[in-house]
Order: sequence, then C-alpha cells, then structure tokens
Amino acid sequence: MSSIGTVSPQTMTFAEPLPLQSGASLRDYTLMYETYGTLNADHSNAVLICHALNASHHVAGWYADDPKNVGWWDNMVGPGKPVDTDRFFVIGINNLGSCFGSTGPMHANPATGKPYGAAFPVVTVEDWVAAQALLADRLGIAQFAAVMGGSLGGMQALAWSIMYPDRLRHCVVIASTPKLSAQNIAFNDVARQAILSDPDYRGGDFYAHGVVPKNGLKVARMVGHITYLSDDDMAEKFGRKLRDITETGSYKFGFGIDFEIESYLRYQGDKFSEYFDANTYLLITKALDYFDPARAYDGDLARTLAHTKAKFFLASFTTDWRFSPERSREIVQALLANRREVTYAEIDAPHGHDAFLLEDPRYMNMVRAYFDQIGQETELTTARSAA
Amino acid sequence: MSSIGTVSPQTMTFAEPLPLQSGASLRDYTLMYETYGTLNADHSNAVLICHALNASHHVAGWYADDPKNVGWWDNMVGPGKPVDTDRFFVIGINNLGSCFGSTGPMHANPATGKPYGAAFPVVTVEDWVAAQALLADRLGIAQFAAVMGGSLGGMQALAWSIMYPDRLRHCVVIASTPKLSAQNIAFNDVARQAILSDPDYRGGDFYAHGVVPKNGLKVARMVGHITYLSDDDMAEKFGRKLRDITETGSYKFGFGIDFEIESYLRYQGDKFSEYFDANTYLLITKALDYFDPARAYDGDLARTLAHTKAKFFLASFTTDWRFSPERSREIVQALLANRREVTYAEIDAPHGHDAFLLEDPRYMNMVRAYFDQIGQETELTTARSAA
Repeated sequence: MSSIGTVSPQTMTFAEPLPLQSGASLRDYTLMYETYGTLNADHSNAVLICHALNASHHVAGWYADDPKNVGWWDNMVGPGKPVDTDRFFVIGINNLGSCFGSTGPMHANPATGKPYGAAFPVVTVEDWVAAQALLADRLGIAQFAAVMGGSLGGMQALAWSIMYPDRLRHCVVIASTPKLSAQNIAFNDVARQAILSDPDYRGGDFYAHGVVPKNGLKVARMVGHITYLSDDDMAEKFGRKLRDITETGSYKFGFGIDFEIESYLRYQGDKFSEYFDANTYLLITKALDYFDPARAYDGDLARTLAHTKAKFFLASFTTDWRFSPERSREIVQALLANRREVTYAEIDAPHGHDAFLLEDPRYMNMVRAYFDQIGQETELTTARSAA
Repeated sequence: MSSIGTVSPQTMTFAEPLPLQSGASLRDYTLMYETYGTLNADHSNAVLICHALNASHHVAGWYADDPKNVGWWDNMVGPGKPVDTDRFFVIGINNLGSCFGSTGPMHANPATGKPYGAAFPVVTVEDWVAAQALLADRLGIAQFAAVMGGSLGGMQALAWSIMYPDRLRHCVVIASTPKLSAQNIAFNDVARQAILSDPDYRGGDFYAHGVVPKNGLKVARMVGHITYLSDDDMAEKFGRKLRDITETGSYKFGFGIDFEIESYLRYQGDKFSEYFDANTYLLITKALDYFDPARAYDGDLARTLAHTKAKFFLASFTTDWRFSPERSREIVQALLANRREVTYAEIDAPHGHDAFLLEDPRYMNMVRAYFDQIGQETELTTARSAA
C-alpha cells in the first residue's frame, strides 16, 4: 500500500455553453482533472471522486515539481488503498468556480475579457454534476462503478444518483447531508458577511486592485474551522492551554493571543487567506446552502430518491456536529423506504466533521470492504461480457 | 404580578483606585446601578443581579422617558415575580468596561483626558465582583441574601461565593460554566478578529475618528447569536424558509439574502452594531475567556469551592450547547464533594442558551420556589433578631 506517486493534472475545454440552474450559462470553460489507474476495456471501472469546500481535483499522489503537495484523499485512493487504483480508474475533477484550475471568478469572462469577479455565475451542486457528466462523456465513461464524496462531495454523489440514475452503479456519500440546516446556513452567512464587508473585497473586483480580502477570508475560515472540529477534540487538543507563559505565569491581559486554540485558529485563517479565493468561498457556501434535492418534491426525500438506481454506501461520524449522523440517517431511511440496497456505517470517531479526511481504521476498512465488493462485481461483469 | 414600573438609574463614583487582576488599576470610576424594592431594617434582604454580555444594570422596569426600554430580566424580577421585589431589595449593577453607563472605554481616561479606547484595562470577572462589593459596602450591605446571574452573570455569582464567602447566603448560577471550553474561546476569538480587523476599529481609537467598526461588530454578533440559539430552535423557527419568493419561486442566485435565517441574523448584527461598543465587546469576551477560578487550585474545582459558605441554586437547559448542562453539573459535583447544600434544575427547554432569559414555567417556578425559601429564611432571621 503506497501512494500513487507522481501525478499530473489535465485540462479539458468546453466551448458549448453550460446552462446553469440560475438561468445563466457558462461558455468556453475549462475543467481541470486528474486520473489514477487504468480505464479497463469496457470502461466499467471508473470511480469519480467529488471534492468538498477547499479541495480540488488533486485527490492523490503529488506533483514532480512540488512533492509536498499531496492529494487531499491520498490515504483513501492509491494502489492497495481502500479505493484501489490497481483496480479502479479514479477521476478527480475540480469544480467550476473553484480557485484551483477549473474556470472560476479569477479567470477572464469571455464576454468582457476581464476577470469575472463577483459576476461569475452562482453555481449549484447540480451544475457541477452536469459539468462532471460532460467530462465523463468525453472520457467515454457511460457509467461509473461509483461516484464518491465527503461533505459537499457527498452532496455531489447524491445529486449524481438523482440526476443520472443510469450513470452510476454505486453512490458513496460520506459525512454529508440531504440539505443544510438553518444553523449550517447561518455559519455560512457569517463567513460571507466577513468577506463581503472587508473593504479589500472591492465588490468582488479585488483582482484589478491588486488586493485580497485577507481579513474577511481569515474570519470566514476561522468560523468554518470551528464547525469542522468536535468540541471534545478541541478540548483534548487545546483545552485552555496557554500559548506562552508570561513572566507572571498568567494571562496577557490584552487582545492578542492567550490560548493555543486562538493561535491555531488564527494560523489556519491566515494560511487559508493566502491561497483561497474570496469569490470562490462565496460561491461554494452558496452551493452548499442551495443544495436541497427534495425541494422539488415538497421536501419528501423518499420521493426524491425514488428515481435512483444505484446501490448506496453512507458513513457518518458520531462527533460530527456540522453534518451529524442524524443527517445521514435521513438519507438512509429515505433509501430504505424505496427498498434500495444501502450499507451504512456510523463511525465512533472523536474528530468531528474532519474525520472523513482522517485515517480511522474502522472507517477505512468499511470503505475498503465496500470497494472490494464493487471491484468483484465489476470484474465479474467484465469477465462475463468477455466470455 | 406586574412590572416594577418606572425606575431610575443611579451612579456612584469612586476616587480610590481599584486594583485589577492584570496589575493595572482604575481610578475615578463610576458604577451605574438600579435598585428595586426596599432594603429592610437589618439590611438582610438584598439580592444582587449580575449581568451577562450585552446587558446592564437595567434589570427590571422601564424609564419614564423611554417606556419601551424594559429591563432585561423583567420577567424574573418585580412585585410577585420569582425574585419578588415586595420582599427583596434587588440591585442591578453595570460592570466596568461596559457601554451602558459605568466607566468604560468610551469615557475619559483621567490620566490623559481622552477616551480610554483600547487602553481601557482588561477587566476580569473577579475585578467586576470586587467593584460590586465596594458598591455594596457603600450601600451598607454586609451580606446579600443572594447573588444571582445567568451565563457570564452566573460566573460573577460563582466568583462572589469564592471571593467573599461570608457576604452571600445564596448563590444562584443559571446557564453558566466554571470556565470556557476551547470551542467557546474559539468563537470569542472569531468575534474579536472580526472587530480588530475592521479598518474602522482604528486600533480602538475610533471615537476620535467619528467612526464605528460596525461591520466587525455585526459579524461578531452574528457568530455569537448562533451560539445562543439551539440547532433545533433555529430549525423550528427558520428552517430553510426563504425570505422572499422570487418570480421563479426559487433562489436568488446572488450573495444577498435568500433565507429567513440570514435576514434574522444580519438584522440582529446590524441592530447590535448600532448600540454596542466595540472595545466593550473585546473586553467582555476576554473576561469570559479568562474566568477559571479553579486555575489557582491546579484545576481542582472541588478544592476551589471548598472555601464557599453559601447555599447554591443552579439551573441549566438541555438544548444549551454554549454552556451545556454538563458544565453546570461540574459545579454541582464539586459542591457536593464539599457537602454544600445544592439545588439543581436541569430544564428541558428548546431555546438553547437564551432560555435563561425566557419565560419557561418550570424554570420560573423553580426560581420562585427557591427565592420563596430564601425569603422565609430571611424573614425568620429578621423576626428573631427583632424579638
């Protein structure tokens, strides 16, 4: 079991306009993606990995010129790993509106020749999935063995099962939810307000002014980060530990950093504000807020999922208070109401929402066992059609 | 049972410097306070009410020239109310550093003649309690029948029991905690970063520039407000309700307000930013972060409370995730370890942390019964000493 090693991103450009849920459309757009493993002869072993808020197409491996830049799910995807690239042809795609390569707010709007900025159209989970399907068409993948994602990535997997029921055999939804709660939306709106009210945001056209709304992005990331960790995990890792012990062994009695947790969060915020795009953050939080596939069915999730044909694997984490196990169970129940085949793992892990990115042995083993089954099915079908 | 009616704030000025925990001191300071009811002959029926983050000395009643400005605990304090002003002499005091009348960052620093701004010394819960004790001295109150508070106010009541064990017979601590968790501190630091990074904060000297860091205060209040409400209550009140239904009955596909919860939170944030002082907000969050009386006893809360002599009443609310029932139970257990007399009510209420300010019949009845008992004890003692 080792990393896939050196990988290279690829791009695919689409001239044809992509109609969006908002009524707007995007034309002349580019999708950046990576692939790992080999597509088999009947194109039946493809797995699509959908990314969450601050991730990208770079799922596994590293770049020759940047070996420290390891893919965000390298512990999950690779040779001999739970999603085994010796068996599956895995695709990671960067979503539209991102700041990691696919067309986004920092790129030139073909209509004006200037960066889109805040004029980049608001994109939805469903829009992303539609773009991913077009890329799959071009790669000759009529049906995925599985579409998989965690958090916002899980929403995309769920949307695939609803929008293109015949194009995936398995839907793998980790630490996700059928829709955000009022509290989830509230935290997103705090983040947006922090960015929008930063004078350096400049109405979204900060690129032209050579500035970046760093303070807004920092606060947005800090509040987001709190919701990714569990209260217990924070208590365990940081508690009330002081960052520096002053001469009096006491507090500093100022508005600087007293506690380790402040230092950690500010550092995370600063780091994030240096690489993430403010318009992308706004776009992605809106995509999260808007996701609610049952909305078209009077809120009836069971009716919404009646159209799906995939088999499902879901996992949630006990200490995840962003998308708690209850949210995954809503999906499970709606699937069971439709007599769908569902495997559900509720993992007792201390790390909150972030657990979906971490190496918990039970979690990894569950995913491994499930993908092993997918692999066996796929290979059996291939062997039969070859026979 | 009616409101106390028209009330008037009073002020008391102290020339003598108040030594603070930071090592700094405050001189020529003023405390603003209100009293309701009548102090009895032996001064044994006084109850001190300590306020939380955005409240003040204005606990009950209203002002003749501003009848809509009703005290923040008017449902709790008044004639025939749980804390019955026909029986008790109730005092509300505004804490130092506040923006509601007692000396704070917007007042002139006697050393410079200019507003303190960010130079106002960082004050702690214990500093507030020390100032409250000086005011009690002047009012001739050697011992309170009870010191009472919710949230940050409960911390003050707890500090009273530790700092001045002989000066209160009952300590009433509602929806509070013996110290903030890492997560609590993290939310406070997000709020501080939002304020400190607002260019209109001007290093705390915004008074001189005729500006107010409204955007920072707004974001700070929004994030705070989320922690005051329960997830369930937010779901119940707001859910995913849209603010306006657009022509297409759909989302607005922009960064404005889509959901009711966004509208509500932004409104709360805007309103708050119009009346609250940014330096006060910073000061109060630091007082919250710093409160940790067990720190002087190697974190041993039982040893910390061994010095107390009061009887205790504690209450917590099941859906309060800011200061959960578990935090109150820590105090209860530490008191029981010292064989203190403790009454503890864990109220099943849907309203999160804010429940302590709301009218829940079980909660009100518990407090009423407890204060009735205090009243009976007090009157019996008074009768005996008169006999």
